[in-house]
Amino acid sequence: MHSLEKIGIKIIGIFEETLTMQPIRTAQSVVYFEEDGYEALRQLWEHKNYASVFLLMDEHTHQYCLAPFMAALAWDKPIELIELPSGEQNKQLFFCQSVWEQLSEQGADRKSLLINLGGGVITDMGGFIASCYKRGIDFVNVPTTLLSMVDASVGGKTGIDLGLLKNQIGVIAEPSLVIIDPRMLDTLDQRQWRSGLAEMLKHGLIMDADYWHQLKNIERFSDLVPLIHHSVALKAAVTKEDPTEQGKRKILNFGHTLGHAIESHFLEKDPEDCLLHGEAIAIGMIMEAYLSTVYTGLRLDEAEEIKATILSAYDSIDLPESILPHILELIQHDKKNSHGIVQFSLLNKIGTCQWNCPVEDGAIKNAIDFYRS
Amino acid sequence: MHSLEKIGIKIIGIFEETLTMQPIRTAQSVVYFEEDGYEALRQLWEHKNYASVFLLMDEHTHQYCLAPFMAALAWDKPIELIELPSGEQNKQLFFCQSVWEQLSEQGADRKSLLINLGGGVITDMGGFIASCYKRGIDFVNVPTTLLSMVDASVGGKTGIDLGLLKNQIGVIAEPSLVIIDPRMLDTLDQRQWRSGLAEMLKHGLIMDADYWHQLKNIERFSDLVPLIHHSVALKAAVTKEDPTEQGKRKILNFGHTLGHAIESHFLEKDPEDCLLHGEAIAIGMIMEAYLSTVYTGLRLDEAEEIKATILSAYDSIDLPESILPHILELIQHDKKNSHGIVQFSLLNKIGTCQWNCPVEDGAIKNAIDFYRS
Repeated sequence: MHSLEKIGIKIIGIFEETLTMQPIRTAQSVVYFEEDGYEALRQLWEHKNYASVFLLMDEHTHQYCLAPFMAALAWDKPIELIELPSGEQNKQLFFCQSVWEQLSEQGADRKSLLINLGGGVITDMGGFIASCYKRGIDFVNVPTTLLSMVDASVGGKTGIDLGLLKNQIGVIAEPSLVIIDPRMLDTLDQRQWRSGLAEMLKHGLIMDADYWHQLKNIERFSDLVPLIHHSVALKAAVTKEDPTEQGKRKILNFGHTLGHAIESHFLEKDPEDCLLHGEAIAIGMIMEAYLSTVYTGLRLDEAEEIKATILSAYDSIDLPESILPHILELIQHDKKNSHGIVQFSLLNKIGTCQWNCPVEDGAIKNAIDFYRS
Repeated sequence: MHSLEKIGIKIIGIFEETLTMQPIRTAQSVVYFEEDGYEALRQLWEHKNYASVFLLMDEHTHQYCLAPFMAALAWDKPIELIELPSGEQNKQLFFCQSVWEQLSEQGADRKSLLINLGGGVITDMGGFIASCYKRGIDFVNVPTTLLSMVDASVGGKTGIDLGLLKNQIGVIAEPSLVIIDPRMLDTLDQRQWRSGLAEMLKHGLIMDADYWHQLKNIERFSDLVPLIHHSVALKAAVTKEDPTEQGKRKILNFGHTLGHAIESHFLEKDPEDCLLHGEAIAIGMIMEAYLSTVYTGLRLDEAEEIKATILSAYDSIDLPESILPHILELIQHDKKNSHGIVQFSLLNKIGTCQWNCPVEDGAIKNAIDFYRS
């Protein structure tokens, strides 16, 4: 990552576009930025006249994000708070059951609203909890990490892990609205910034080469803030075209087939000290860039450029030799599989991606070696 | 219930109509009868080219229904069997998790199909399991009880109980198709027939007075078989008009506000020896017929007619004095509630029902006394 001065004209365009921070419409929802979001929530609440409103958060967002959220909402109606422990290892059915029981005990009926204030774990799990409670109540997502702003905020994927397998259980359901408030990032640590950056880099790699080149030259994490709007707009465009992931939407899985497997591998090894989603996806993108050179025509120098760019921002992770059989086993559970064949989304060149690419086990071994070398 | 001879012309009409057993279209699905259903399933399977097909059943349907189903399907492709213990007390998240783990271990991917062979517990729970597995796989329902044929087969309500509270967790999702094969009823016991009869009586009470009078005169349970098609057609008409239960569909809840509470009460008392759904709904319909005389203009002689008809088919259940506070507590969790007010669906006369009727606690006490007296 280099200095901002190198960015040039195009990114100025993005800055101007994002300064206005217009709401972005998705298939069934709207993503609002900053104060627009709070105003939209107040209007929704008034219009729907909710019988009760609940807010789901984790320990971290309770500590860092609840106060700024409440202050910005500036609303005198009561909100019941529900807190979960922080961390991907808690994105499990057990905690859904606990929240369902709390909603039930507190008399939440079908005219209730659930506000999910947190990173992807909270918005994914909270969306699932709301979608299944009494066969579906309204929910609003307030993503509090860069990752959840640029990724989980759009597309309606809700869900939880099944043991160590990621997002195996869930439904497609969009929130009533999403509020992206960059102030929530004020207390975000470096690893979390990096985790979100991975998905932004992916947006460039799969569909916007200019954006990739702009991101390559970012100097400080805070410089990513004005680009959030562009990442959300790119993801919204793809998911609107193919909301149920029958085709094109699969390009968003670039880096994720191996990335998810690596994430599961480290989660299994030590749930307390695992990789963040974006950290695993960054590794997955390097490996799948290699696979793209084998199967879909990506030039080797482009794969090397992807690897060098990612490794300039992310620490290299030590992968033992023994990881291969475990990775091969884990990708058997990938949700994109069909008829037992693992399907990858791979790059043709930087900025263009194709989906439903079967890959052989031997190539996966070489992809892991490409990352290691 | 009297002799068949009294039935007269109208029911002959229904017999003729149902002899043809034409498929019935619902909002997103089709209910097929007899051999048409197996043919439709074979065609679906061929067309969708499923990677794997699973069949969910309970101990009872394993014993009584699996062999006739497999014989009628007459298909040489493999089906993986998953068995759950029988009974409403097992309609819980714990068993969903167990099935999700089995599907995952056996490599079920998004192109898999789940066939639910069983009563309402299996079709409700199996529909929920399929709808959430990898964010939704196809499922087919093969109801094996009279109740699940005339009730759970239509409308897309899937779900499970949360502790003792019925159907608190679920989604609205319709199966790819439904097969109603009356041969599955060959081994049904008397209590199960009676349980299904309650929902058929309800269809008459809320929307078809002629049908109510015809059902009143049925002599043998087996005479209900040709009427299944008419009950399914009535329910399909209502749920098509209002699939998400914003309005008219709520008439299907007649008898269910108090009926569900009574069902939960007995489930709590002794999970091994609780009331069947229809047995509880039969009691609920008598009580809510009384409420209808107070709030929505049902004549007292009609309420007495409803009570006498139901008690001619169902044993009277001894309800202790102490049941009232528990019932009042349980109905607070009714899914139709809004802003803490319990909403009933009540009859204006036999054959006409209105919804969103608030009811006072004192009237509920009197309704219980009306059943008891």
